[in-house]
Amino acid sequence: MGAVGGLYGGRLAAAGHDVHFLVRSSLDEIRRDGLHVESVDGDIDLPTVSVFDRAEDVPPVDVVVIATKTTANASLAGTLPVLIRPGTTVVVMQNGLGGEEQASAFAPDAVILGGLCFVCSELLDPGHVRHVDYGTVTLGTFRSDGRPAGSTPELTAVAQDLGSAGVKVIPQDDLVLARWKKLVWNIPYNGLSVVLDAGTDELMADPASRTLVRSLMEEVVAGAATCRRVIEERFVEQMLVDTDAMTPYRTSMKLDFDARRPLEIDAIYGTPTIRARSAGSPMPRTEALADELRFLDTRNRR
Amino acid sequence: MGAVGGLYGGRLAAAGHDVHFLVRSSLDEIRRDGLHVESVDGDIDLPTVSVFDRAEDVPPVDVVVIATKTTANASLAGTLPVLIRPGTTVVVMQNGLGGEEQASAFAPDAVILGGLCFVCSELLDPGHVRHVDYGTVTLGTFRSDGRPAGSTPELTAVAQDLGSAGVKVIPQDDLVLARWKKLVWNIPYNGLSVVLDAGTDELMADPASRTLVRSLMEEVVAGAATCRRVIEERFVEQMLVDTDAMTPYRTSMKLDFDARRPLEIDAIYGTPTIRARSAGSPMPRTEALADELRFLDTRNRR
Repeated sequence: MGAVGGLYGGRLAAAGHDVHFLVRSSLDEIRRDGLHVESVDGDIDLPTVSVFDRAEDVPPVDVVVIATKTTANASLAGTLPVLIRPGTTVVVMQNGLGGEEQASAFAPDAVILGGLCFVCSELLDPGHVRHVDYGTVTLGTFRSDGRPAGSTPELTAVAQDLGSAGVKVIPQDDLVLARWKKLVWNIPYNGLSVVLDAGTDELMADPASRTLVRSLMEEVVAGAATCRRVIEERFVEQMLVDTDAMTPYRTSMKLDFDARRPLEIDAIYGTPTIRARSAGSPMPRTEALADELRFLDTRNRR
Repeated sequence: MGAVGGLYGGRLAAAGHDVHFLVRSSLDEIRRDGLHVESVDGDIDLPTVSVFDRAEDVPPVDVVVIATKTTANASLAGTLPVLIRPGTTVVVMQNGLGGEEQASAFAPDAVILGGLCFVCSELLDPGHVRHVDYGTVTLGTFRSDGRPAGSTPELTAVAQDLGSAGVKVIPQDDLVLARWKKLVWNIPYNGLSVVLDAGTDELMADPASRTLVRSLMEEVVAGAATCRRVIEERFVEQMLVDTDAMTPYRTSMKLDFDARRPLEIDAIYGTPTIRARSAGSPMPRTEALADELRFLDTRNRR
């Protein structure tokens, strides 16, 4: 159980929903100690939670939330088909592009939603999450043809569940657009925080790194446009202003790097650059940053 | 006195030429201890050398060799006009682009040559140079209009002096082409060795960094073409093969970084990218790498 699944799953459970956690490790500790979330929005203390480490043991569910890192998506082959029944909704709460497609491959008949978590949270110990800031979830419905899905009953239902648990949800007609807009932030800050070993505040304060952040953002906006998703030019300026005002923190990729976990390079860099390049508009700065990250990730986990 | 001036100046002095060194520091040590070069091509021991720290004190010379880092070129304003007489030749033994133009601004009537040193050498102590490998100097004549200068009497004379001192010289009709070709190597390896804290061998062994090295090289070839300098496509492949075969070593930029000296970012990255961009063909990967280097350089010397 990670920082995202623990936070949102904990909120849902605390609000009275039947929540079952499927974990890859620390089953015994979580069974024994429960789930505890220190949160800016109010702490959650669940002395007992329903937790399993085999998909086969999980009771039937209406909604499956995938809240692992994208780097673990190969494991969906062994879990998702087991969890899916007719009518099950899948929510992919992951970074970058491609998660819904990967889930869809193992749940071809399920309605799949994408959830974008704008949240600073981290796992301190098994079953012990610290939620530092933000927390909104942007939610949209996946369509395999890549077009905007608009509003769907499944989207409304999941948004209501999360809302009832005190999670702020922003429903989106166009999941792909929402994902590209999140990449405008994630592509510069996640990668540069690792390559330059710097916080968001340092990256904004130095003129050269600020220039590079902006260039990367503009490249993402151009990449999105190539994939027929129009992000207004002023969005870049807004991201810069918002980041200037942010409490500096370590990005999720920096947290992964410092803990020697695999980096989400394919989801945040690989898939977007491949899609933009196939559509005729390469993202050279982003590709270069991705290559640097791949080098560092390999060395970091050797 | 640095690793380049010490090596080539030492060779010329050992061969009987009148050589005067102009240094910014360590005058007394060098006066007292002389110049010593441990070299793969044979050691040089000069118990006394003619050395000064004020341009005004240097006796009249026929040839001025500028062998400082490009980051010190602002100091040419105070030295070069003092050293120049009618008929003096200036040799700019520096990395990247722009050094000849900067020298020319302070010696408008002098014939200016550019020297490209393919050499691994470093300064161990004042007056103590270690020359590890290579050593060839590519030499061409500068023309302010940027066109190939062909062969000139000054080029022949300096090549003869260096040759008589045992330095291998390759005269070039087109100095600008020679400088762009050297950038094909310098732009990827200098920058990535600093940003990724890696040797040339590590950069070649990892598939992602190797891809990035190649992409950067191809970008430099394209940038050169924009500036009307044609580098054949197979040159990139040759550079990769040559580097695979090289003894791994720290690049000059990595040596500078590790010693917290200023990095030659403007000469190796800034000027080439500005020229390519003005000519209509930006070098985005190179620009991104330059921005990363500027950030790291600033932090490194804070």
